[in-house]
Amino acid sequence: MRFVLVAGTTETAGIEGISAAGATRAAMVHTPSADAEILVYGAPVSSSPVPVSPTGCPTPAVITRAVREAIGFPVAVLDAGIARPTAAPTVALAGPPGGDIRDPVPVPNAAEVFETARALGEGLPDDRIVIGETIPGGTTTALGTLAALGEREVVSSSLPENPVALKREVVAEGLAASGLERGERADDPIGAVERMGDPVLAGVAGLAVGALESGTVVTLGGGTQMLAAAALVRRFEPETPPSLATTSFVAADVDLEPPVESLGLPLSVTDPEFAATSHESMARYVAGEAKEGVGMGGALAEYADSGDPFPELHDWIVTVYDRLFR
Amino acid sequence: MRFVLVAGTTETAGIEGISAAGATRAAMVHTPSADAEILVYGAPVSSSPVPVSPTGCPTPAVITRAVREAIGFPVAVLDAGIARPTAAPTVALAGPPGGDIRDPVPVPNAAEVFETARALGEGLPDDRIVIGETIPGGTTTALGTLAALGEREVVSSSLPENPVALKREVVAEGLAASGLERGERADDPIGAVERMGDPVLAGVAGLAVGALESGTVVTLGGGTQMLAAAALVRRFEPETPPSLATTSFVAADVDLEPPVESLGLPLSVTDPEFAATSHESMARYVAGEAKEGVGMGGALAEYADSGDPFPELHDWIVTVYDRLFR
Repeated sequence: MRFVLVAGTTETAGIEGISAAGATRAAMVHTPSADAEILVYGAPVSSSPVPVSPTGCPTPAVITRAVREAIGFPVAVLDAGIARPTAAPTVALAGPPGGDIRDPVPVPNAAEVFETARALGEGLPDDRIVIGETIPGGTTTALGTLAALGEREVVSSSLPENPVALKREVVAEGLAASGLERGERADDPIGAVERMGDPVLAGVAGLAVGALESGTVVTLGGGTQMLAAAALVRRFEPETPPSLATTSFVAADVDLEPPVESLGLPLSVTDPEFAATSHESMARYVAGEAKEGVGMGGALAEYADSGDPFPELHDWIVTVYDRLFR
Repeated sequence: MRFVLVAGTTETAGIEGISAAGATRAAMVHTPSADAEILVYGAPVSSSPVPVSPTGCPTPAVITRAVREAIGFPVAVLDAGIARPTAAPTVALAGPPGGDIRDPVPVPNAAEVFETARALGEGLPDDRIVIGETIPGGTTTALGTLAALGEREVVSSSLPENPVALKREVVAEGLAASGLERGERADDPIGAVERMGDPVLAGVAGLAVGALESGTVVTLGGGTQMLAAAALVRRFEPETPPSLATTSFVAADVDLEPPVESLGLPLSVTDPEFAATSHESMARYVAGEAKEGVGMGGALAEYADSGDPFPELHDWIVTVYDRLFR
């Protein structure tokens, strides 16, 4: 198994109150770069701050890295519009950060990102990959993509109180700016991303399609962003669908059954038993923050499959947390 | 331990007869890109051909990858002027391929490459790193750098018959074009690389200096190119020197004792016992081809330290070789 993180940014994250993937909106632009460093090296390397939510919940990169230290797996990071330099090695997919979905064409290079990622996915020699994402604002662009595709519009959030009304308003503005009715891009997945998505969605979908086409088993590690990616992948009619692996925190926030059923996605939900500890690295997840990101659900599913008990993982999480915040 | 591969190109490799790091001079420009893919993924991913020498000796990336599959270690690839796209994740150091050292200033961005790599080396959280290189033509640019620094001019080769006379002629032309006497850049390591080196040397030296400055133990995995890198590093007066880990094939080609002693480098030489097998993946090394590259000497030293017997490594080498050439 190889874990592939698709990292990027969208100007949609600049909308007040839309994301908690950074202490401030200014800090958020660094989050994907720092997440990549934490995943690869186990600590930030360049000057990026460690991403935390406004209330201090550490980035899910801590959890995914801890799983990696516990059970070991190789990683690759794909750059789908990172906005700040990262010291993590990356494969450049194409182009700049995504624009605000309230603009007419926020991802003009969606086709290029998709095809570059697809070629990489086809070439990977791995039997199986788990794909994660890091893009602040990504649940809103995912919601926009689902709307353009005419799929069920489920949306989770990194905030404890999901600002669903705000997200729907932003998506409505985006549809209007793009001159789109709901479902008008049902048969044009690339067009849906160009008008209403973000470059990470294009990268995840391309990577998954390419990998599936060459016989690699694909798990999408994430929540509602990965549902949108799966909806895109489905348009390319792979023989085998990807599966979705998410956290119990996402499953508690949104009803995943209907979209998963309509997309034909095998689903796994993992509860990392954070309620058994009160350590600050995990407590805010129990309080409903963060929920997912950096492939956390996919990593936790791998950990569960290893058969190791979760209290041991909690120790690894504390180790990584202390290294980052010491 | 993290293995860091610094990959790049120099137009010096285009000189007829100077390098065997590719089946043809046209193929050689792909070698670093393909080596990075083999190290990271265990097989080429993009369309790059598998690098072989003109007589069919496979790239030392096969050996380093086999060691990685046998004992496991994380890798990072730094792009110091790769000339063809690679599907391997890389950290971009700076700028384009190096020029021909017969030009006055073949590496105008040496300072930028050095400082970018130095910052990365300082930031790495690893206790210990092993640095490898892949750059066709690199032994000649290393020889030129040693000349500019006024160090002992030892030079090995990927060819069974080391074209020493040709290399010395190229270096003499380079010194003349740069308006340099031997040793005229003894106190200006960056200037020596600018005039007579290649961007990979700047990257290796910067990475090593930054890592040593932050207390990371550094092993240079390679032959005479790494001697040149060590000579550069020495000018920055680190408290602890790096060590040099090379193969018995390099040690049989050149007398390493005098330069290693004058540079104060701890040296390890590893014999991978290829003489015990006649498999085509290893036979040409015994015949004196390739000798080093892609940190092979460093990887073999790690393998020797693991205590596993070399015949087991031979099986891993055959596995990787079959995957690449099937």
